[in-house]
Amino acid sequence: MKIALAQINYHIGNFKQNEDKILKSISSAKSQGADIVIFAEMATSGYPPRDFLEFRDFIHQCDESISDIAKACKGIAAVVGSPSINPEEQGKDLHNSAFFLTDGKVQEVRHKTLLPNYDIFDEYRYFEPNKTFKVVEYKGKRIALTICEDLWNIGNDPMYTINPMDELMKQDPDFIINIAASPFHYKQVKRRKDILLQNVERYKIPLFYMNHVGAQTELLFDGGSMVINSGGIVIDELNYFEEDLRVYDLSQIDDPAFYSRLAPKPNKGKIELIHDALVMGIRNYFHKLGFNKAILGLSGGIDSAVTLALAARALGEQNVLAVMLPSEFSSDHSVADAQKLAENLDCPYELISIEEAYKSFESSLNAVFKDQPFDITEENIQARIRGLILMALSNKFGYILLNTSNKSEAAVGYGTLYGDMNGGLSVLGDVYKTEVYELARFINKNVEIIPENSILKPPSAELRPGQKDSDSLPEYDILDKILYQYIEMRKGPKELVGMGFDEAMVRRILKLVNTNEYKRYQTAPTLRISPKAFGMGRRMPIVARYLS
Amino acid sequence: MKIALAQINYHIGNFKQNEDKILKSISSAKSQGADIVIFAEMATSGYPPRDFLEFRDFIHQCDESISDIAKACKGIAAVVGSPSINPEEQGKDLHNSAFFLTDGKVQEVRHKTLLPNYDIFDEYRYFEPNKTFKVVEYKGKRIALTICEDLWNIGNDPMYTINPMDELMKQDPDFIINIAASPFHYKQVKRRKDILLQNVERYKIPLFYMNHVGAQTELLFDGGSMVINSGGIVIDELNYFEEDLRVYDLSQIDDPAFYSRLAPKPNKGKIELIHDALVMGIRNYFHKLGFNKAILGLSGGIDSAVTLALAARALGEQNVLAVMLPSEFSSDHSVADAQKLAENLDCPYELISIEEAYKSFESSLNAVFKDQPFDITEENIQARIRGLILMALSNKFGYILLNTSNKSEAAVGYGTLYGDMNGGLSVLGDVYKTEVYELARFINKNVEIIPENSILKPPSAELRPGQKDSDSLPEYDILDKILYQYIEMRKGPKELVGMGFDEAMVRRILKLVNTNEYKRYQTAPTLRISPKAFGMGRRMPIVARYLS
Repeated sequence: MKIALAQINYHIGNFKQNEDKILKSISSAKSQGADIVIFAEMATSGYPPRDFLEFRDFIHQCDESISDIAKACKGIAAVVGSPSINPEEQGKDLHNSAFFLTDGKVQEVRHKTLLPNYDIFDEYRYFEPNKTFKVVEYKGKRIALTICEDLWNIGNDPMYTINPMDELMKQDPDFIINIAASPFHYKQVKRRKDILLQNVERYKIPLFYMNHVGAQTELLFDGGSMVINSGGIVIDELNYFEEDLRVYDLSQIDDPAFYSRLAPKPNKGKIELIHDALVMGIRNYFHKLGFNKAILGLSGGIDSAVTLALAARALGEQNVLAVMLPSEFSSDHSVADAQKLAENLDCPYELISIEEAYKSFESSLNAVFKDQPFDITEENIQARIRGLILMALSNKFGYILLNTSNKSEAAVGYGTLYGDMNGGLSVLGDVYKTEVYELARFINKNVEIIPENSILKPPSAELRPGQKDSDSLPEYDILDKILYQYIEMRKGPKELVGMGFDEAMVRRILKLVNTNEYKRYQTAPTLRISPKAFGMGRRMPIVARYLS
Repeated sequence: MKIALAQINYHIGNFKQNEDKILKSISSAKSQGADIVIFAEMATSGYPPRDFLEFRDFIHQCDESISDIAKACKGIAAVVGSPSINPEEQGKDLHNSAFFLTDGKVQEVRHKTLLPNYDIFDEYRYFEPNKTFKVVEYKGKRIALTICEDLWNIGNDPMYTINPMDELMKQDPDFIINIAASPFHYKQVKRRKDILLQNVERYKIPLFYMNHVGAQTELLFDGGSMVINSGGIVIDELNYFEEDLRVYDLSQIDDPAFYSRLAPKPNKGKIELIHDALVMGIRNYFHKLGFNKAILGLSGGIDSAVTLALAARALGEQNVLAVMLPSEFSSDHSVADAQKLAENLDCPYELISIEEAYKSFESSLNAVFKDQPFDITEENIQARIRGLILMALSNKFGYILLNTSNKSEAAVGYGTLYGDMNGGLSVLGDVYKTEVYELARFINKNVEIIPENSILKPPSAELRPGQKDSDSLPEYDILDKILYQYIEMRKGPKELVGMGFDEAMVRRILKLVNTNEYKRYQTAPTLRISPKAFGMGRRMPIVARYLS
């Protein structure tokens, strides 16, 4: 039996395009002699469709896609993820289902048992969990057909009270198919493989694992679909961050003579994974929205430099406009460093001074401000003038503005709402400042693209004379460690102090994080590369008094 | 047996204040001879604490509150909602629990069975559902102790496969206690009462129902806790939108001589409910954040007029600064109408022209814009200058900026991101334009507060000469009907056309709603008064191609 894995970059709600890609893959798999071709979870609709699932019209379009795809399954079977209507009167209206299509029709449907409802997942919002278990029989083989999370209740601290594979094993399946939509973060690539290997180790049958690839706004799917043989060897992985289609002969996958010929993917390091994920995230965000061109404010600092380099790789250097927006507080090297970077990358750039606009606001506000001293208000006015000019260029010429804030700043609220926090997409909002430096070094690994001076100089917002980030924030290497423990690891103040961090600093930082929730609420969607990103996966009250 | 209902305005994570309020109510109930005093769901922490529930430190503080409150329960019992740790190895780490406290300690704990996970609710994210059922025995009475949603799986289209009261009835309880956190929308007051009545009708025992009151950012809790006797009569309701404490004698509640003396609450109409909810929402948002003063841009139009009137009622007229920001496109009546309103309300106001700032941007952008014609860019620049000036005043003097956009505009993206969409709180973002007019009429019901001219003139953004909303949008009475069917009722295009709406208009409006998701993503939290508000209860992908 030959089994094809078709790893596709779906587009949420773009039924026509998703169906076309699926049909093309069926045709290609068939021409390579495949008996079954496997597509991902929720392939018809893209994942996650979120509240579109509450529209009967949307579900109807998913059904129509399934029906069209089934018609193409002649001489081949396909496994396709799609929502299905729960026929029972009680419970949620939908299931998250895997359709087994062959002979031109829907042969079998299986539903997801374990519905993730944590971090970025909301599956209990829409779906009723499966409660009955039956293998799919096809051409003399018994297939344990499961969906994503169904394989994840393994190991310590089980989140669910049931394990679908334990049930399916009672029916003696020959192999497992798992169709998934497993979003990337830098620890997930290894963790996912470990979980899949634990399954094969426990059940001792091969596993065909099919993941999404491509970005859906903030969620990045890295692909890396794989085949694990019954001996627990990952015999092959599909491309990471790219579409792919490969066909395997079930009778060969346990044969070392066969699988030793397949080149295993070299393991990429954390920073390279983040780099590749962000480039894909930017590219898919623009292209799926029908845009080609980005704009950003280039300050000469490290964050906008890294953002520009990533955007140039994602969209092509000629499609990214860098704008330098100096004020009276900008240092000479800022514009020089920015210009050097734009030239190194061969990106177009503009220079627009904000001094005249700043003076006009001073004058307009003079009658109300009277003798009030210069304070954060004036700093914010500068940031907001920059934001306004960038948005004006964006509106006039059809750019999308990229936000350049990093995760450390976003965490402690070191940024101006409606100013430098503007943008359609936050590229680095899940990347701590210390990791931004690592990204810069990675980008420069062969040749100096980002000027060394942007990397070496002390970080500054340059909104008042001689300002440095360290005037009002702890050093980033300490700050980032505390933020990681609080945000990613959910450690409270006592636990943090127990880890050796200074209590006053811990209290101050946690208070900053919590009281700046209101700013993050209005931030652009953030490309998610960590296990706990700001946005849909971290849901906090704004009005609250905990650690604040 | 005497039973007290203590309806409290909790503050999320403000353990000290919540505990103090609970202890004071226990003391007051005891002095009135109560045997039991009932508090709401998640009373220790406030509701919804959202991802704070993932912090062990937060749960520990809830436990400490329960322990403190238990100590005060001598000669009286208290029912207090709080999270509790799931002792089982499998499943989610927490339960959503009701603690029965007496004799200075925790006597019994019951867990919530039905976990809402739709609209604004995320309870499967945190909690393991209860699966065993046992009444609480106290002073010879058997109590069916349930939590909020546990009573809601009644009627057609059941969302859950189990009904907790059916199980508890097997143990022959004397009455039901239901502790809740049931957020307001204008249909919910009646719906909630209907659901509770259906329970009493089915189980034929009295019900003591305890709800939250007060606002938690966007969620508004209207209170209205109530007692329903075994005959299915609502014998009393606690205050709406205010704290309250009342004591009832169980032996009296079926006695008409007793309950006919209780004044039933007059049913408020939809617009009055919305009015009262918004006033409470503004007031609690500010005071729980430690702020007193609001600022807003007053255009002379209806939206900012209604927002100002509501804010003046919520915070006191002297605490709301209205700022008129005319441009060359502002009509004469705009400033006059705005000024008249501020004077009618006795609010302070300022007038700051944006013409100078606008000219400075024209000049700064001239070299890049060259001969490009006036378009939406220049309209947005005006809105963003206004936003910048309002934020500058907010920063300098410690105001929170109120956003004045209505739901119709928010739906179709008729507003400028980082301009008139600025603000810490959206007051009218869940109120359709046609409802804003009704609110204005309600505010003016005794005396003309909002100038008649602001109500009568055709809506206009005044961002180009002679502009009217109807130049680019359908008339609001049609637009709002289509929006309601799409947003609140989740009707798709075919269903809408089937209802008699013009197909081209339907397609155009649905596309506007979907393609403007990116703007709403960056909008302020919106006070929720409808069954489907923008924000946490409506979760949509930004990058998608459905109906767009």
